[in-house]
Amino acid sequence: MPVGLSSPHDLLPVKGVRLAACAAGIRYQGRDDLALIELHEDSTVAAVFTRNAFCAAPVVVARQHLAQASARYLLINSGNANAGTGAAGFDDARAVCTLMAEQAHVDMVSVLPFSTGVIGEPLPVTAFEAAIPGLLKGLDDSAWSSAAEAIMTTDTLPKALSEKVTLSGGEVVITGMAKGAGMIRPDMATMLAFIATDVVIDADQIKQMHAQAVEQSFNRVTVDGDTSTNDACVLMASGQSGIGFAHEQDQLLFQAALDSVYRHLAQALIRDGEGATKFVEIRVNEAANEQEALSVAYTVAHSPLVKTALFASDPNWGRILAAVGRSGIANMDVDRVHIDLGDVRIVENGARAASYTEAQGQAVMDQDEIVISITLGRGDVDSVIWTSDLSFDYVKINAEYRT
Amino acid sequence: MPVGLSSPHDLLPVKGVRLAACAAGIRYQGRDDLALIELHEDSTVAAVFTRNAFCAAPVVVARQHLAQASARYLLINSGNANAGTGAAGFDDARAVCTLMAEQAHVDMVSVLPFSTGVIGEPLPVTAFEAAIPGLLKGLDDSAWSSAAEAIMTTDTLPKALSEKVTLSGGEVVITGMAKGAGMIRPDMATMLAFIATDVVIDADQIKQMHAQAVEQSFNRVTVDGDTSTNDACVLMASGQSGIGFAHEQDQLLFQAALDSVYRHLAQALIRDGEGATKFVEIRVNEAANEQEALSVAYTVAHSPLVKTALFASDPNWGRILAAVGRSGIANMDVDRVHIDLGDVRIVENGARAASYTEAQGQAVMDQDEIVISITLGRGDVDSVIWTSDLSFDYVKINAEYRT
Repeated sequence: MPVGLSSPHDLLPVKGVRLAACAAGIRYQGRDDLALIELHEDSTVAAVFTRNAFCAAPVVVARQHLAQASARYLLINSGNANAGTGAAGFDDARAVCTLMAEQAHVDMVSVLPFSTGVIGEPLPVTAFEAAIPGLLKGLDDSAWSSAAEAIMTTDTLPKALSEKVTLSGGEVVITGMAKGAGMIRPDMATMLAFIATDVVIDADQIKQMHAQAVEQSFNRVTVDGDTSTNDACVLMASGQSGIGFAHEQDQLLFQAALDSVYRHLAQALIRDGEGATKFVEIRVNEAANEQEALSVAYTVAHSPLVKTALFASDPNWGRILAAVGRSGIANMDVDRVHIDLGDVRIVENGARAASYTEAQGQAVMDQDEIVISITLGRGDVDSVIWTSDLSFDYVKINAEYRT
Repeated sequence: MPVGLSSPHDLLPVKGVRLAACAAGIRYQGRDDLALIELHEDSTVAAVFTRNAFCAAPVVVARQHLAQASARYLLINSGNANAGTGAAGFDDARAVCTLMAEQAHVDMVSVLPFSTGVIGEPLPVTAFEAAIPGLLKGLDDSAWSSAAEAIMTTDTLPKALSEKVTLSGGEVVITGMAKGAGMIRPDMATMLAFIATDVVIDADQIKQMHAQAVEQSFNRVTVDGDTSTNDACVLMASGQSGIGFAHEQDQLLFQAALDSVYRHLAQALIRDGEGATKFVEIRVNEAANEQEALSVAYTVAHSPLVKTALFASDPNWGRILAAVGRSGIANMDVDRVHIDLGDVRIVENGARAASYTEAQGQAVMDQDEIVISITLGRGDVDSVIWTSDLSFDYVKINAEYRT
């Protein structure tokens, strides 16, 4: 049951971007599992991929194709990751690109393949072959919702959002979708995100703006610390609004809107995190640098003991304290550390706050959305990440998935 | 339900070492929760403590006392960690040492305090005061079993073992006990271990031998990656056998026996790991160095997705592959990586082994004790660690403990 998340609505078409989805029977029955995105030929594209050494064949192929040509088609399947599939996996990833390219009359390097799902099973290329003509016929600029559903795996809800930005030259649109619920952590975990805009933007600028937006969104969320072999986040700008950045202020406005869309999508992954019953924001304040702020934040976020206490709505602040203490910060002066649960100070100067009562902590923990603030007293760097709790359902989902 | 572990039996007394245990009512009702160990005045002692920055008051006090005097008494309570208790916690830890010292007519720095249990509650010093006279009267060299029971927290079984070693001068004895079931990871997680021997050994030698034994035992096990504020492992040598190391071979024999006792106790923590249904050995072979071997091993061992697959007896080797891939090894050549599940090769040269069948993997996963071997093809360093699975009961125990 997702925490504070409902199905997307009011998704806006993006000029120059069309989508389609269908049930190709790749693994699932009775639901869409293949999505296609078509980009206008003037589009610019930026993408980041998983840093997992065992990255899947489609990741390698998509990276290669992006370096060689402008992307025109993104073909995204769920149900099969085409990972751990060796040389045959590369052949299969290239084969679906070729099939797509033949039907769409483009170079095969203009097609980017994306796969998500079970690792180690051969990709059923024939299912793609049968589905591609229908997908091409069905392309429509209003199909964001059905595409967002087709790329889901253990997600309980599709995740998508639109924002309008008024630049000095007029209004542009950003619409994005994402999938992912478990195996989530920074550096592109088991997630795919595709964000499109009709703004005019050059190849260098889109890379920079994409990188900045990813850094404070998808690189700040964790469910279980596991990264997958298939993650990618792609920003596509069709340029078909004819509106670019006339002034520096335009770029700032657009970046802010982009950041907001990315953050919403990244948080949606957590809100729909496998078995999640809590949406947890972890703020680390007064760190000496960002690295140590994130080290403390992720140590707390990944601690199974903290996560099970969150699931139990138990204000067991000792577990938070212990996780902070083992986060590997050199020369931590524990006497300067404060910890707040929501508005309640639970640890002051390294020990239980004199003013703290269990009832206060319980009141915060009983909520669905919880903020844990850790103040280190070492510098002036603040960071924030988002995570979920560890519930019976997390174990159930991950013990039963695939079997 | 512990995996392949039963209650200790045939524990041997160690000359010069007496123990006692009682129900002091520190937190639990109807069970012993306080243990005392008395050492002969000629004893040498070596200890390692948690590296958690928020180490508990008794850890700080025990370290200080060890540096100042020969230890004569170790006072160990369960039910209360005396951690996160600020200045009052230090006063309390010193107060119980003083109470003990007065009754036993020794310096208070000859008393070492150890606490394990809930964080953030004040230590009930009066309970210690009432219990100490009875403990002193009850000291007996055969009380290892009851002491091992008194120090338990979420353990389902006491953990202890004896070994005899025949040195050139005669036979010496090693008897050790440990507690711990969750919050277990290297560098002294939520565990306490006390190992005693009657061998004659000097202060430098005992430190070295202790460090070596710890490194390949307690520093090679993980349940959930969480370290606590209170962990310690203490080796005590009474010297009362009158037998020392006459030859280098004696020292090697003794170290081997010590290693074996430590490894048994460390593995017992995992076998009794919270909610454990599997005992898992993770071997990393052909690493370039120990650091990368352990990095791969712990990434796999801490992966919630691998752990839930183990719980489900699901040969989901893709999750193992993904964990290896995200373990942060620079320039990993995935084409050289093999993974075996027991005797079954599941991944060969980075992809599903051609010979592999799901039935083979299932047969291995159906067992209670599972060996995962990961061959990196990067060098000649092999390492091994031990861990458990992630079950419903892990969540249940940690969501319900304390409430």
